[in-house]
Amino acid sequence: MDMSRDELFQNAVSELGYSFDGEMRIGGNYVPIVGNGNEIYISGQIPRVGNTVVVTGRVGQDASLDDGRLAAKICAMRALALLRQSLGSLDRVKKILRMTVYVQSASDFTQQSEVADGASELLYSIFSSAGQHTRTSVGVFQLPKNASVEIDMIVAVDTASGSGDAWLAV
Amino acid sequence: MDMSRDELFQNAVSELGYSFDGEMRIGGNYVPIVGNGNEIYISGQIPRVGNTVVVTGRVGQDASLDDGRLAAKICAMRALALLRQSLGSLDRVKKILRMTVYVQSASDFTQQSEVADGASELLYSIFSSAGQHTRTSVGVFQLPKNASVEIDMIVAVDTASGSGDAWLAV
Amino acid sequence: MDMSRDELFQNAVSELGYSFDGEMRIGGNYVPIVGNGNEIYISGQIPRVGNTVVVTGRVGQDASLDDGRLAAKICAMRALALLRQSLGSLDRVKKILRMTVYVQSASDFTQQSEVADGASELLYSIFSSAGQHTRTSVGVFQLPKNASVEIDMIVAVDTASGSGDAWLAV
Repeated sequence: MDMSRDELFQNAVSELGYSFDGEMRIGGNYVPIVGNGNEIYISGQIPRVGNTVVVTGRVGQDASLDDGRLAAKICAMRALALLRQSLGSLDRVKKILRMTVYVQSASDFTQQSEVADGASELLYSIFSSAGQHTRTSVGVFQLPKNASVEIDMIVAVDTASGSGDAWLAV
Repeated sequence: MDMSRDELFQNAVSELGYSFDGEMRIGGNYVPIVGNGNEIYISGQIPRVGNTVVVTGRVGQDASLDDGRLAAKICAMRALALLRQSLGSLDRVKKILRMTVYVQSASDFTQQSEVADGASELLYSIFSSAGQHTRTSVGVFQLPKNASVEIDMIVAVDTASGSGDAWLAV
Repeated sequence: MDMSRDELFQNAVSELGYSFDGEMRIGGNYVPIVGNGNEIYISGQIPRVGNTVVVTGRVGQDASLDDGRLAAKICAMRALALLRQSLGSLDRVKKILRMTVYVQSASDFTQQSEVADGASELLYSIFSSAGQHTRTSVGVFQLPKNASVEIDMIVAVDTASGSGDAWLAV
């Protein structure tokens, strides 16, 4: 029997061995998620689990390509955890529209796309064609808290079943 | 008595001691603001006042964290000045949807979020909850004119009261 | 007699001397174009022609400003080629909303805007006022495959004449 997206998400959580259950930060000068119409913007996510950034340093120097791919996966999982908390279920995701992947890179590291693949594969494994997104991957000089990767997203959601969400009422 | 957003904006102008009254550039191959439906895209802003970029160099090396925060604030003020000129009043802003903050960083400078806070605090002080935005902060290698910070935004506006704006008629 | 946008595009192809006829990649974990409502997101494009990245290295060090401008133009042409394949004709473009230009920069290279002008001029030459976009130009540390420039876009299109496009059915 096919698994639901929420089950696939939980499976990915188990495979990674990290918890993404932390409370969504409410308030503050900026917020993790904002909606406008059927579009959801998600703030840049670093590979933080609880209070620890689990992959740090320059990819291609302090961190390997595989470390970078893991970091990208964790960033994407954090974004999905936020979506799930906001929407109730990942079933309300219609399409991942855009993912921007910032990779803290060594001077000669040119495999930013391969790092980003870690996140793209995760999205496809959970959402199938609804997870096929547009993507931009670039190599930056530094990232907050020395994170190896940072990812933000724009997502289209099904609003019909969820009118009245506070976060959609911009 | 509560101050209006436009008054709060003018107060922030006075506190900073810079003028943001310059004409909005019209024409050219690109433009400062474009609208689509109720969304407004704002071009990347550097901390320029008149013809001078007032904060330059790498944050964490040539410029301090406080310099960076000031730079972020000026970038955000420029974006708001453009919005105000286009909309007539900041009262038509429904929600700041997205802010991306690019910080020209020293190799080991990892406080891009703290730099971005300068802009986030400004937005909240003027718009309260409507100013709570999603945010991505990254450390880049260089910026135009050696600026320390560059910021772009996407903003949702109230279109009902302003149908017919040339710049909304895409 | 005025040339159509598609003719202007073909002229630009001829002037550059490169072919942009390659098949649009279908499938995979991410895709070149996704639509939502009347907005089209286009994945980050590097100056690749066929299987070759034709401009590589740091602008201001390994590549000249003119090389960078050419790279930006090729990135933009790739984006337009994708749009044209998806839409049938560039006549369905209503407005280029946003272009983000990532320039692999030398440490002291600060002319990212001048590099981006290569792409902005191209857009204006083909779309006139519909091509006047908002823009963000930044200097990054590396790019996929050592490309000198990467560009992504968000574009508003006329959906009335093309309802039923598979790629719009998010």
